[in-house]
Amino acid sequence: MFAASADNIVTGSKLLMELLGADSSARAEIAERMRAAEHAGDDATHAIFHQLNSSFITPFDREDIYTLAGSLDDIMDFMEEAVDLVVLYQVEELPKGVEQQIEVLARAAELTAEAMPNLRTMDNLTEYWIEVNRLENQADQIHRKLLAHLFNGKYDAIEVLKLKQIVDVLEEAADAFEHVANTVETIAVKES
Amino acid sequence: MFAASADNIVTGSKLLMELLGADSSARAEIAERMRAAEHAGDDATHAIFHQLNSSFITPFDREDIYTLAGSLDDIMDFMEEAVDLVVLYQVEELPKGVEQQIEVLARAAELTAEAMPNLRTMDNLTEYWIEVNRLENQADQIHRKLLAHLFNGKYDAIEVLKLKQIVDVLEEAADAFEHVANTVETIAVKES
Amino acid sequence: MFAASADNIVTGSKLLMELLGADSSARAEIAERMRAAEHAGDDATHAIFHQLNSSFITPFDREDIYTLAGSLDDIMDFMEEAVDLVVLYQVEELPKGVEQQIEVLARAAELTAEAMPNLRTMDNLTEYWIEVNRLENQADQIHRKLLAHLFNGKYDAIEVLKLKQIVDVLEEAADAFEHVANTVETIAVKES
Repeated sequence: MFAASADNIVTGSKLLMELLGADSSARAEIAERMRAAEHAGDDATHAIFHQLNSSFITPFDREDIYTLAGSLDDIMDFMEEAVDLVVLYQVEELPKGVEQQIEVLARAAELTAEAMPNLRTMDNLTEYWIEVNRLENQADQIHRKLLAHLFNGKYDAIEVLKLKQIVDVLEEAADAFEHVANTVETIAVKES
Repeated sequence: MFAASADNIVTGSKLLMELLGADSSARAEIAERMRAAEHAGDDATHAIFHQLNSSFITPFDREDIYTLAGSLDDIMDFMEEAVDLVVLYQVEELPKGVEQQIEVLARAAELTAEAMPNLRTMDNLTEYWIEVNRLENQADQIHRKLLAHLFNGKYDAIEVLKLKQIVDVLEEAADAFEHVANTVETIAVKES
Repeated sequence: MFAASADNIVTGSKLLMELLGADSSARAEIAERMRAAEHAGDDATHAIFHQLNSSFITPFDREDIYTLAGSLDDIMDFMEEAVDLVVLYQVEELPKGVEQQIEVLARAAELTAEAMPNLRTMDNLTEYWIEVNRLENQADQIHRKLLAHLFNGKYDAIEVLKLKQIVDVLEEAADAFEHVANTVETIAVKES
Protein backbone atom coordinates (compact mmCIF):
# COMPACT_ATOMS: atom_id res chain seq x y z
CA MET A 1 0.00 0.00 0.00
CA PHE A 2 2.92 2.36 0.64
CA ALA A 3 4.16 1.59 -2.88
CA ALA A 4 0.79 2.69 -4.35
CA SER A 5 0.97 5.90 -2.35
CA ALA A 6 4.53 6.58 -3.58
CA ASP A 7 3.66 5.84 -7.24
CA ASN A 8 0.92 8.41 -6.93
CA ILE A 9 3.51 10.95 -5.77
CA VAL A 10 5.58 10.27 -8.90
CA THR A 11 2.45 11.09 -10.94
CA GLY A 12 2.08 14.32 -8.97
CA SER A 13 5.70 15.36 -9.52
CA LYS A 14 5.30 14.79 -13.30
CA LEU A 15 2.23 17.05 -13.30
CA LEU A 16 4.31 19.75 -11.55
CA MET A 17 6.88 19.41 -14.36
CA GLU A 18 4.16 19.78 -17.01
CA LEU A 19 2.89 22.89 -15.26
CA LEU A 20 6.14 24.77 -15.92
CA GLY A 21 5.66 25.24 -19.65
CA ALA A 22 1.85 25.30 -19.65
CA ASP A 23 -0.41 28.15 -20.76
CA SER A 24 -3.49 29.04 -18.74
CA SER A 25 -5.92 26.55 -20.33
CA ALA A 26 -3.38 23.74 -20.02
CA ARG A 27 -2.82 24.75 -16.38
CA ALA A 28 -6.50 24.34 -15.53
CA GLU A 29 -6.47 20.85 -17.00
CA ILE A 30 -3.27 19.93 -15.09
CA ALA A 31 -4.90 21.18 -11.87
CA GLU A 32 -7.85 18.88 -12.58
CA ARG A 33 -5.58 15.83 -12.98
CA MET A 34 -3.62 16.87 -9.86
CA ARG A 35 -6.84 16.96 -7.86
CA ALA A 36 -7.68 13.43 -9.06
CA ALA A 37 -4.18 12.22 -8.05
CA GLU A 38 -4.56 13.82 -4.63
CA HIS A 39 -7.94 12.12 -4.11
CA ALA A 40 -6.38 8.78 -5.07
CA GLY A 41 -3.67 9.51 -2.49
CA ASP A 42 -6.27 10.28 0.18
CA ASP A 43 -7.99 6.95 -0.52
CA ALA A 44 -4.66 5.10 -0.19
CA THR A 45 -3.95 6.82 3.14
CA HIS A 46 -7.41 6.08 4.52
CA ALA A 47 -7.05 2.44 3.47
CA ILE A 48 -3.75 2.21 5.39
CA PHE A 49 -5.22 3.89 8.49
CA HIS A 50 -8.30 1.69 8.41
CA GLN A 51 -6.38 -1.54 8.05
CA LEU A 52 -3.97 -0.40 10.77
CA ASN A 53 -6.73 0.46 13.23
CA SER A 54 -8.50 -2.85 12.72
CA SER A 55 -5.33 -5.05 12.82
CA PHE A 56 -4.03 -6.56 16.00
CA ILE A 57 -0.62 -7.42 14.61
CA THR A 58 1.29 -5.04 12.30
CA PRO A 59 4.55 -5.63 10.35
CA PHE A 60 6.26 -2.58 11.95
CA ASP A 61 5.53 -0.34 14.93
CA ARG A 62 2.05 1.11 14.61
CA GLU A 63 3.33 4.67 15.24
CA ASP A 64 5.89 4.39 12.43
CA ILE A 65 3.26 3.21 9.95
CA TYR A 66 1.00 6.13 10.89
CA THR A 67 3.85 8.61 10.50
CA LEU A 68 4.94 7.12 7.17
CA ALA A 69 1.42 7.13 5.67
CA GLY A 70 0.77 10.64 6.97
CA SER A 71 4.04 12.02 5.52
CA LEU A 72 3.39 10.44 2.12
CA ASP A 73 -0.04 12.07 2.20
CA ASP A 74 1.50 15.45 3.14
CA ILE A 75 3.79 15.38 0.06
CA MET A 76 0.81 14.95 -2.24
CA ASP A 77 -1.17 17.69 -0.46
CA PHE A 78 1.70 20.19 -0.80
CA MET A 79 2.19 19.40 -4.52
CA GLU A 80 -1.53 19.77 -5.17
CA GLU A 81 -1.60 23.06 -3.24
CA ALA A 82 1.30 24.44 -5.33
CA VAL A 83 -0.52 23.71 -8.61
CA ASP A 84 -3.76 25.14 -7.26
CA LEU A 85 -2.06 28.38 -6.13
CA VAL A 86 -0.43 28.91 -9.54
CA VAL A 87 -3.87 28.67 -11.18
CA LEU A 88 -5.71 30.63 -8.46
CA TYR A 89 -3.23 33.54 -8.42
CA GLN A 90 -2.99 33.58 -12.23
CA VAL A 91 0.79 33.76 -11.93
CA GLU A 92 2.22 35.01 -15.24
CA GLU A 93 5.73 33.63 -14.96
CA LEU A 94 7.40 31.52 -12.31
CA PRO A 95 10.96 32.55 -11.33
CA LYS A 96 13.69 30.23 -12.67
CA GLY A 97 14.52 28.61 -9.31
CA VAL A 98 11.04 27.03 -9.22
CA GLU A 99 12.08 24.69 -12.03
CA GLN A 100 15.04 23.57 -9.92
CA GLN A 101 12.75 23.03 -6.92
CA ILE A 102 10.46 20.82 -9.00
CA GLU A 103 13.39 18.83 -10.45
CA VAL A 104 14.55 18.03 -6.91
CA LEU A 105 11.01 16.94 -5.98
CA ALA A 106 10.77 14.72 -9.08
CA ARG A 107 14.08 13.02 -8.20
CA ALA A 108 12.99 12.54 -4.57
CA ALA A 109 9.67 11.08 -5.78
CA GLU A 110 11.45 8.50 -7.96
CA LEU A 111 13.80 7.48 -5.14
CA THR A 112 10.87 7.15 -2.73
CA ALA A 113 8.85 5.01 -5.15
CA GLU A 114 11.90 2.75 -5.67
CA ALA A 115 12.52 2.44 -1.92
CA MET A 116 8.99 1.55 -0.74
CA PRO A 117 8.96 -2.05 -2.09
CA ASN A 118 12.32 -2.57 -0.31
CA LEU A 119 10.60 -2.23 3.07
CA ARG A 120 9.83 -5.95 2.64
CA THR A 121 13.49 -6.97 2.42
CA MET A 122 15.17 -3.91 4.04
CA ASP A 123 17.66 -3.79 1.13
CA ASN A 124 19.32 -0.59 -0.10
CA LEU A 125 17.43 1.65 2.29
CA THR A 126 20.55 3.40 3.63
CA GLU A 127 21.48 4.71 0.15
CA TYR A 128 17.92 5.97 -0.30
CA TRP A 129 17.95 7.73 3.06
CA ILE A 130 21.33 9.43 2.46
CA GLU A 131 20.32 10.58 -1.02
CA VAL A 132 16.96 12.05 0.07
CA ASN A 133 18.67 13.95 2.89
CA ARG A 134 21.16 15.33 0.35
CA LEU A 135 18.28 16.37 -1.93
CA GLU A 136 16.53 18.11 0.96
CA ASN A 137 19.65 20.18 1.70
CA GLN A 138 19.81 21.07 -2.00
CA ALA A 139 16.12 22.05 -1.98
CA ASP A 140 16.74 24.20 1.09
CA GLN A 141 19.51 26.15 -0.66
CA ILE A 142 17.44 26.63 -3.82
CA HIS A 143 14.56 27.86 -1.65
CA ARG A 144 16.64 30.43 0.25
CA LYS A 145 18.15 31.75 -3.00
CA LEU A 146 14.64 32.06 -4.43
CA LEU A 147 13.50 34.10 -1.42
CA ALA A 148 16.51 36.43 -1.76
CA HIS A 149 15.65 36.77 -5.47
CA LEU A 150 11.99 37.61 -4.72
CA PHE A 151 13.09 40.27 -2.23
CA ASN A 152 15.66 41.94 -4.49
CA GLY A 153 13.35 44.82 -5.36
CA LYS A 154 12.34 43.81 -8.91
CA TYR A 155 8.95 42.37 -7.97
CA ASP A 156 6.08 44.34 -6.53
CA ALA A 157 4.97 43.40 -3.01
CA ILE A 158 1.75 41.62 -3.98
CA GLU A 159 3.63 39.53 -6.56
CA VAL A 160 6.23 38.67 -3.89
CA LEU A 161 3.45 37.48 -1.58
CA LYS A 162 1.95 35.23 -4.24
CA LEU A 163 5.27 33.74 -5.39
CA LYS A 164 6.57 33.33 -1.84
CA GLN A 165 3.56 31.23 -0.92
CA ILE A 166 4.16 28.96 -3.91
CA VAL A 167 7.91 28.45 -3.31
CA ASP A 168 7.25 27.91 0.43
CA VAL A 169 4.74 25.14 -0.33
CA LEU A 170 7.24 23.45 -2.68
CA GLU A 171 9.85 23.64 0.11
CA GLU A 172 7.37 22.01 2.49
CA ALA A 173 6.98 19.16 -0.03
CA ALA A 174 10.80 18.68 0.01
CA ASP A 175 10.75 18.60 3.83
CA ALA A 176 7.99 15.99 3.76
CA PHE A 177 10.17 13.71 1.58
CA GLU A 178 12.83 13.94 4.31
CA HIS A 179 10.23 13.01 6.97
CA VAL A 180 9.36 9.91 4.92
CA ALA A 181 13.06 8.97 4.65
CA ASN A 182 13.62 9.51 8.40
CA THR A 183 10.69 7.24 9.24
CA VAL A 184 11.99 4.57 6.87
CA GLU A 185 15.38 4.79 8.61
CA THR A 186 13.71 4.40 12.01
CA ILE A 187 11.91 1.27 10.79
CA ALA A 188 15.11 -0.14 9.26
CA VAL A 189 17.18 0.36 12.43
CA LYS A 190 14.53 -1.35 14.58
CA GLU A 191 14.41 -4.34 12.21
CA SER A 192 18.19 -4.74 12.05
CA MET B 1 -13.20 16.55 30.48
CA PHE B 2 -13.21 16.54 26.67
CA ALA B 3 -16.81 17.77 26.78
CA ALA B 4 -15.78 20.76 28.94
CA SER B 5 -13.02 21.57 26.47
CA ALA B 6 -15.44 21.37 23.52
CA ASP B 7 -18.09 23.53 25.26
CA ASN B 8 -15.41 26.14 25.72
CA ILE B 9 -14.76 26.08 21.96
CA VAL B 10 -18.46 26.78 21.32
CA THR B 11 -18.10 29.85 23.54
CA GLY B 12 -15.06 30.90 21.49
CA SER B 13 -16.86 30.50 18.17
CA LYS B 14 -19.75 32.66 19.45
CA LEU B 15 -17.28 35.39 20.42
CA LEU B 16 -15.86 35.25 16.88
CA MET B 17 -19.41 35.78 15.56
CA GLU B 18 -19.89 38.79 17.85
CA LEU B 19 -16.63 40.25 16.62
CA LEU B 20 -17.97 40.59 13.07
CA GLY B 21 -20.34 43.46 13.77
CA ALA B 22 -18.42 45.03 16.66
CA ASP B 23 -16.94 48.53 16.80
CA SER B 24 -13.51 49.08 18.29
CA SER B 25 -14.54 49.41 21.96
CA ALA B 26 -16.76 46.31 21.71
CA ARG B 27 -13.84 44.49 20.04
CA ALA B 28 -11.53 45.15 23.00
CA GLU B 29 -14.14 43.74 25.36
CA ILE B 30 -14.67 40.64 23.17
CA ALA B 31 -10.89 40.08 23.10
CA GLU B 32 -10.91 40.17 26.91
CA ARG B 33 -13.64 37.52 27.13
CA MET B 34 -11.83 35.44 24.48
CA ARG B 35 -8.66 35.52 26.55
CA ALA B 36 -10.62 34.26 29.57
CA ALA B 37 -12.11 31.42 27.49
CA GLU B 38 -8.65 30.49 26.22
CA HIS B 39 -7.28 30.36 29.78
CA ALA B 40 -10.19 28.13 30.81
CA GLY B 41 -9.29 25.90 27.84
CA ASP B 42 -5.63 25.78 28.94
CA ASP B 43 -6.70 24.69 32.41
CA ALA B 44 -8.89 21.92 30.96
CA THR B 45 -5.98 20.68 28.79
CA HIS B 46 -3.52 20.70 31.69
CA ALA B 47 -6.03 18.79 33.84
CA ILE B 48 -6.34 16.11 31.11
CA PHE B 49 -2.53 15.86 30.69
CA HIS B 50 -1.98 15.68 34.43
CA GLN B 51 -4.56 12.98 35.01
CA LEU B 52 -3.23 11.06 32.00
CA ASN B 53 0.37 11.18 33.18
CA SER B 54 -0.53 10.00 36.66
CA SER B 55 -2.93 7.22 35.57
CA PHE B 56 -1.80 3.68 34.95
CA ILE B 57 -4.94 2.62 33.10
CA THR B 58 -6.65 4.90 30.56
CA PRO B 59 -9.99 4.45 28.76
CA PHE B 60 -8.41 4.77 25.29
CA ASP B 61 -4.83 4.67 23.96
CA ARG B 62 -2.72 7.22 25.80
CA GLU B 63 -1.39 8.67 22.51
CA ASP B 64 -4.92 9.25 21.19
CA ILE B 65 -5.97 11.09 24.35
CA TYR B 66 -2.89 13.33 24.12
CA THR B 67 -3.59 14.10 20.47
CA LEU B 68 -7.27 14.79 21.11
CA ALA B 69 -6.64 17.13 24.06
CA GLY B 70 -3.86 18.91 22.16
CA SER B 71 -6.01 19.45 19.05
CA LEU B 72 -8.93 20.80 21.07
CA ASP B 73 -6.47 23.21 22.69
CA ASP B 74 -5.13 24.25 19.27
CA ILE B 75 -8.62 25.22 18.06
CA MET B 76 -9.05 27.58 21.01
CA ASP B 77 -5.57 29.06 20.53
CA PHE B 78 -6.21 29.80 16.84
CA MET B 79 -9.59 31.41 17.56
CA GLU B 80 -8.08 33.56 20.32
CA GLU B 81 -5.22 34.57 18.01
CA ALA B 82 -7.67 35.64 15.28
CA VAL B 83 -9.53 37.95 17.66
CA ASP B 84 -6.29 39.35 19.04
CA LEU B 85 -4.93 40.10 15.54
CA VAL B 86 -8.11 41.96 14.51
CA VAL B 87 -7.71 44.22 17.58
CA LEU B 88 -3.91 44.54 17.33
CA TYR B 89 -3.90 45.44 13.62
CA GLN B 90 -6.88 47.78 14.03
CA VAL B 91 -8.49 46.21 10.96
CA GLU B 92 -11.18 48.55 9.64
CA GLU B 93 -13.29 46.07 7.73
CA LEU B 94 -13.01 42.31 7.33
CA PRO B 95 -13.62 40.95 3.81
CA LYS B 96 -16.97 39.17 3.36
CA GLY B 97 -15.53 35.65 3.18
CA VAL B 98 -14.39 35.93 6.81
CA GLU B 99 -18.03 35.74 7.91
CA GLN B 100 -18.37 32.48 5.97
CA GLN B 101 -15.19 31.13 7.59
CA ILE B 102 -16.55 31.90 11.06
CA GLU B 103 -19.95 30.32 10.27
CA VAL B 104 -18.20 27.09 9.30
CA LEU B 105 -16.17 27.19 12.54
CA ALA B 106 -19.33 27.77 14.61
CA ARG B 107 -21.03 24.76 12.95
CA ALA B 108 -17.94 22.59 13.51
CA ALA B 109 -17.81 23.70 17.17
CA GLU B 110 -21.43 22.66 17.74
CA LEU B 111 -20.90 19.27 16.11
CA THR B 112 -17.74 18.68 18.16
CA ALA B 113 -19.48 19.60 21.42
CA GLU B 114 -22.33 17.20 20.56
CA ALA B 115 -19.93 14.38 19.67
CA MET B 116 -17.64 14.45 22.74
CA PRO B 117 -20.16 12.93 25.20
CA ASN B 118 -20.71 10.11 22.65
CA LEU B 119 -17.14 8.88 23.20
CA ARG B 120 -18.65 6.97 26.16
CA THR B 121 -21.06 5.01 24.01
CA MET B 122 -19.39 5.33 20.57
CA ASP B 123 -22.79 6.26 19.05
CA ASN B 124 -23.24 8.51 16.01
CA LEU B 125 -19.52 9.24 15.67
CA THR B 126 -19.33 8.32 11.98
CA GLU B 127 -21.89 11.00 11.02
CA TYR B 128 -19.91 13.55 13.05
CA TRP B 129 -16.63 12.58 11.40
CA ILE B 130 -18.07 12.76 7.86
CA GLU B 131 -19.72 16.13 8.50
CA VAL B 132 -16.60 17.76 10.00
CA ASN B 133 -14.53 16.55 7.04
CA ARG B 134 -17.11 18.07 4.70
CA LEU B 135 -16.97 21.36 6.63
CA GLU B 136 -13.16 21.38 6.44
CA ASN B 137 -13.31 21.03 2.64
CA GLN B 138 -15.80 23.90 2.55
CA ALA B 139 -13.53 26.02 4.79
CA ASP B 140 -10.61 25.25 2.48
CA GLN B 141 -12.50 26.54 -0.56
CA ILE B 142 -13.66 29.69 1.24
CA HIS B 143 -10.05 30.28 2.34
CA ARG B 144 -8.58 29.93 -1.16
CA LYS B 145 -11.22 32.26 -2.60
CA LEU B 146 -10.44 34.79 0.14
CA LEU B 147 -6.73 34.68 -0.74
CA ALA B 148 -7.48 35.23 -4.43
CA HIS B 149 -9.73 38.15 -3.39
CA LEU B 150 -6.98 39.70 -1.22
CA PHE B 151 -4.52 39.44 -4.11
CA ASN B 152 -6.81 40.95 -6.75
CA GLY B 153 -5.11 44.34 -6.61
CA LYS B 154 -7.70 46.31 -4.65
CA TYR B 155 -5.92 46.14 -1.29
CA ASP B 156 -2.56 47.68 -0.54
CA ALA B 157 0.26 45.29 0.33
CA ILE B 158 0.38 45.99 4.09
CA GLU B 159 -3.40 45.50 4.34
CA VAL B 160 -3.04 42.21 2.43
CA LEU B 161 -0.40 41.06 4.93
CA LYS B 162 -2.63 41.84 7.91
CA LEU B 163 -5.77 40.27 6.48
CA LYS B 164 -3.92 37.22 5.15
CA GLN B 165 -2.59 36.45 8.61
CA ILE B 166 -6.12 36.59 10.04
CA VAL B 167 -7.74 34.39 7.37
CA ASP B 168 -4.82 31.93 7.62
CA VAL B 169 -5.30 31.57 11.38
CA LEU B 170 -9.03 30.93 10.89
CA GLU B 171 -8.15 28.26 8.30
CA GLU B 172 -5.80 26.65 10.84
CA ALA B 173 -8.71 26.51 13.29
CA ALA B 174 -10.79 24.64 10.66
CA ASP B 175 -7.90 22.21 10.10
CA ALA B 176 -7.67 21.61 13.86
CA PHE B 177 -11.37 20.60 13.94
CA GLU B 178 -10.55 17.97 11.32
CA HIS B 179 -7.62 16.71 13.45
CA VAL B 180 -10.03 16.30 16.36
CA ALA B 181 -12.48 14.36 14.16
CA ASN B 182 -9.70 12.14 12.76
CA THR B 183 -8.54 11.26 16.27
CA VAL B 184 -12.11 10.45 17.31
CA GLU B 185 -12.41 8.16 14.28
CA THR B 186 -9.15 6.41 15.24
CA ILE B 187 -10.48 5.81 18.76
CA ALA B 188 -13.85 4.58 17.43
CA VAL B 189 -12.28 2.07 15.00
CA LYS B 190 -10.04 0.64 17.74
CA GLU B 191 -13.02 0.20 20.06
CA SER B 192 -15.21 -1.50 17.45
CA MET C 1 23.39 13.55 25.45
CA PHE C 2 20.50 15.97 26.07
CA ALA C 3 22.92 18.15 28.05
CA ALA C 4 25.29 18.35 25.05
CA SER C 5 22.38 19.33 22.83
CA ALA C 6 21.28 22.05 25.29
CA ASP C 7 24.84 23.44 25.70
CA ASN C 8 24.92 23.80 21.94
CA ILE C 9 21.74 25.87 22.12
CA VAL C 10 23.40 28.23 24.61
CA THR C 11 26.19 28.71 22.05
CA GLY C 12 23.56 29.47 19.42
CA SER C 13 21.77 32.04 21.59
CA LYS C 14 25.09 33.82 22.26
CA LEU C 15 25.73 34.02 18.50
CA LEU C 16 22.28 35.61 18.10
CA MET C 17 23.29 38.21 20.70
CA GLU C 18 26.53 38.96 18.83
CA LEU C 19 24.56 39.39 15.62
CA LEU C 20 22.70 42.41 17.00
CA GLY C 21 25.62 44.81 16.93
CA ALA C 22 27.51 43.25 14.02
CA ASP C 23 28.36 44.90 10.69
CA SER C 24 27.97 42.92 7.47
CA SER C 25 31.39 41.22 7.45
CA ALA C 26 31.02 40.23 11.12
CA ARG C 27 27.55 38.90 10.30
CA ALA C 28 28.90 36.55 7.64
CA GLU C 29 31.39 35.16 10.11
CA ILE C 30 28.70 34.72 12.80
CA ALA C 31 26.53 32.87 10.27
CA GLU C 32 29.45 30.53 9.60
CA ARG C 33 29.86 29.72 13.31
CA MET C 34 26.09 29.30 13.64
CA ARG C 35 26.09 26.78 10.82
CA ALA C 36 28.85 24.81 12.61
CA ALA C 37 26.81 24.85 15.86
CA GLU C 38 23.73 23.66 14.01
CA HIS C 39 25.68 20.76 12.43
CA ALA C 40 26.98 19.80 15.89
CA GLY C 41 23.35 19.84 17.06
CA ASP C 42 22.28 17.60 14.15
CA ASP C 43 25.00 15.11 15.08
CA ALA C 44 23.83 15.08 18.72
CA THR C 45 20.21 14.47 17.62
CA HIS C 46 21.17 11.66 15.24
CA ALA C 47 23.26 10.05 17.99
CA ILE C 48 20.22 10.11 20.33
CA PHE C 49 17.89 8.69 17.65
CA HIS C 50 20.36 5.97 16.72
CA GLN C 51 20.97 4.87 20.28
CA LEU C 52 17.23 4.96 20.94
CA ASN C 53 16.35 2.85 17.92
CA SER C 54 18.94 0.21 18.76
CA SER C 55 18.18 0.04 22.53
CA PHE C 56 15.68 -2.37 23.96
CA ILE C 57 15.41 -0.62 27.32
CA THR C 58 15.30 3.17 27.63
CA PRO C 59 15.41 5.37 30.77
CA PHE C 60 12.12 7.15 29.92
CA ASP C 61 9.29 6.47 27.46
CA ARG C 62 10.68 6.15 23.96
CA GLU C 63 8.14 8.65 22.59
CA ASP C 64 9.15 11.30 25.14
CA ILE C 65 12.84 10.94 24.29
CA TYR C 66 12.05 11.34 20.57
CA THR C 67 9.98 14.42 21.24
CA LEU C 68 12.60 15.95 23.53
CA ALA C 69 15.49 15.39 21.11
CA GLY C 70 13.40 16.64 18.19
CA SER C 71 12.35 19.83 20.02
CA LEU C 72 15.93 20.62 21.08
CA ASP C 73 16.91 20.19 17.43
CA ASP C 74 14.08 22.51 16.32
CA ILE C 75 15.34 25.33 18.59
CA MET C 76 18.77 25.19 16.97
CA ASP C 77 17.28 25.08 13.45
CA PHE C 78 15.13 28.16 14.11
CA MET C 79 18.04 30.13 15.57
CA GLU C 80 20.26 29.21 12.63
CA GLU C 81 17.50 30.17 10.18
CA ALA C 82 17.11 33.59 11.85
CA VAL C 83 20.83 34.37 11.44
CA ASP C 84 20.83 33.11 7.88
CA LEU C 85 17.83 35.28 6.93
CA VAL C 86 19.42 38.44 8.39
CA VAL C 87 22.49 37.83 6.18
CA LEU C 88 20.53 36.68 3.13
CA TYR C 89 18.10 39.60 3.15
CA GLN C 90 20.90 42.10 3.93
CA VAL C 91 18.71 43.64 6.64
CA GLU C 92 20.06 47.11 7.46
CA GLU C 93 18.62 47.52 10.92
CA LEU C 94 16.60 45.19 13.10
CA PRO C 95 13.66 46.76 14.98
CA LYS C 96 14.26 47.21 18.74
CA GLY C 97 11.92 44.43 19.84
CA VAL C 98 14.21 41.85 18.19
CA GLU C 99 16.78 42.47 20.91
CA GLN C 100 14.13 41.69 23.52
CA GLN C 101 13.18 38.49 21.66
CA ILE C 102 16.82 37.37 21.66
CA GLU C 103 17.26 38.17 25.36
CA VAL C 104 14.30 35.95 26.19
CA LEU C 105 15.77 33.16 24.04
CA ALA C 106 19.17 33.50 25.78
CA ARG C 107 17.51 33.23 29.21
CA ALA C 108 15.46 30.19 28.12
CA ALA C 109 18.62 28.57 26.71
CA GLU C 110 20.45 28.97 30.04
CA LEU C 111 17.52 27.54 32.01
CA THR C 112 17.25 24.60 29.63
CA ALA C 113 20.98 23.83 29.82
CA GLU C 114 20.75 23.93 33.65
CA ALA C 115 17.69 21.67 33.70
CA MET C 116 18.88 18.87 31.40
CA PRO C 117 21.38 17.31 33.88
CA ASN C 118 18.55 17.28 36.47
CA LEU C 119 16.67 14.69 34.40
CA ARG C 120 18.86 12.16 36.24
CA THR C 121 17.62 13.19 39.69
CA MET C 122 14.33 14.91 38.76
CA ASP C 123 15.27 17.85 41.04
CA ASN C 124 14.12 21.43 40.48
CA LEU C 125 12.31 20.63 37.24
CA THR C 126 9.04 22.29 38.28
CA GLU C 127 10.72 25.70 38.73
CA TYR C 128 12.33 25.30 35.30
CA TRP C 129 9.03 24.40 33.67
CA ILE C 130 7.14 27.32 35.24
CA GLU C 131 9.86 29.82 34.31
CA VAL C 132 10.10 28.70 30.65
CA ASN C 133 6.33 28.93 30.31
CA ARG C 134 6.49 32.46 31.73
CA LEU C 135 9.25 33.36 29.26
CA GLU C 136 7.21 31.97 26.36
CA ASN C 137 4.26 34.19 27.29
CA GLN C 138 6.64 37.16 27.45
CA ALA C 139 8.08 36.21 24.02
CA ASP C 140 4.57 36.01 22.64
CA GLN C 141 3.75 39.55 23.78
CA ILE C 142 7.02 40.94 22.41
CA HIS C 143 6.29 39.20 19.11
CA ARG C 144 2.76 40.59 18.77
CA LYS C 145 3.97 44.09 19.59
CA LEU C 146 6.70 43.73 16.97
CA LEU C 147 4.13 42.73 14.33
CA ALA C 148 1.96 45.73 15.18
CA HIS C 149 5.10 47.90 14.92
CA LEU C 150 6.01 46.46 11.49
CA PHE C 151 2.49 47.12 10.24
CA ASN C 152 2.27 50.73 11.51
CA GLY C 153 2.95 52.18 8.05
CA LYS C 154 6.58 53.30 8.52
CA TYR C 155 8.14 50.33 6.70
CA ASP C 156 7.69 49.54 3.04
CA ALA C 157 5.92 46.28 2.25
CA ILE C 158 8.99 44.31 1.09
CA GLU C 159 10.85 45.33 4.26
CA VAL C 160 7.86 44.21 6.34
CA LEU C 161 7.94 40.82 4.61
CA LYS C 162 11.63 40.34 5.34
CA LEU C 163 11.46 41.47 8.98
CA LYS C 164 8.24 39.56 9.66
CA GLN C 165 9.88 36.32 8.54
CA ILE C 166 12.79 36.92 10.93
CA VAL C 167 10.66 37.81 13.98
CA ASP C 168 8.34 34.85 13.23
CA VAL C 169 11.28 32.43 13.19
CA LEU C 170 12.51 33.82 16.54
CA GLU C 171 9.00 33.32 17.94
CA GLU C 172 9.05 29.71 16.71
CA ALA C 173 12.32 29.25 18.64
CA ALA C 174 10.57 30.50 21.82
CA ASP C 175 7.67 28.07 21.21
CA ALA C 176 10.17 25.22 20.79
CA PHE C 177 11.67 25.98 24.24
CA GLU C 178 8.17 25.58 25.66
CA HIS C 179 7.78 22.21 23.86
CA VAL C 180 11.02 21.07 25.48
CA ALA C 181 9.77 22.17 28.92
CA ASN C 182 6.38 20.45 28.41
CA THR C 183 8.09 17.19 27.49
CA VAL C 184 10.34 17.43 30.55
CA GLU C 185 7.23 17.94 32.70
CA THR C 186 5.59 14.88 31.13
CA ILE C 187 8.67 12.79 31.95
CA ALA C 188 8.82 14.16 35.51
CA VAL C 189 5.15 13.40 36.26
CA LYS C 190 5.51 9.82 34.97
CA GLU C 191 8.57 9.26 37.16
CA SER C 192 6.95 10.69 40.30
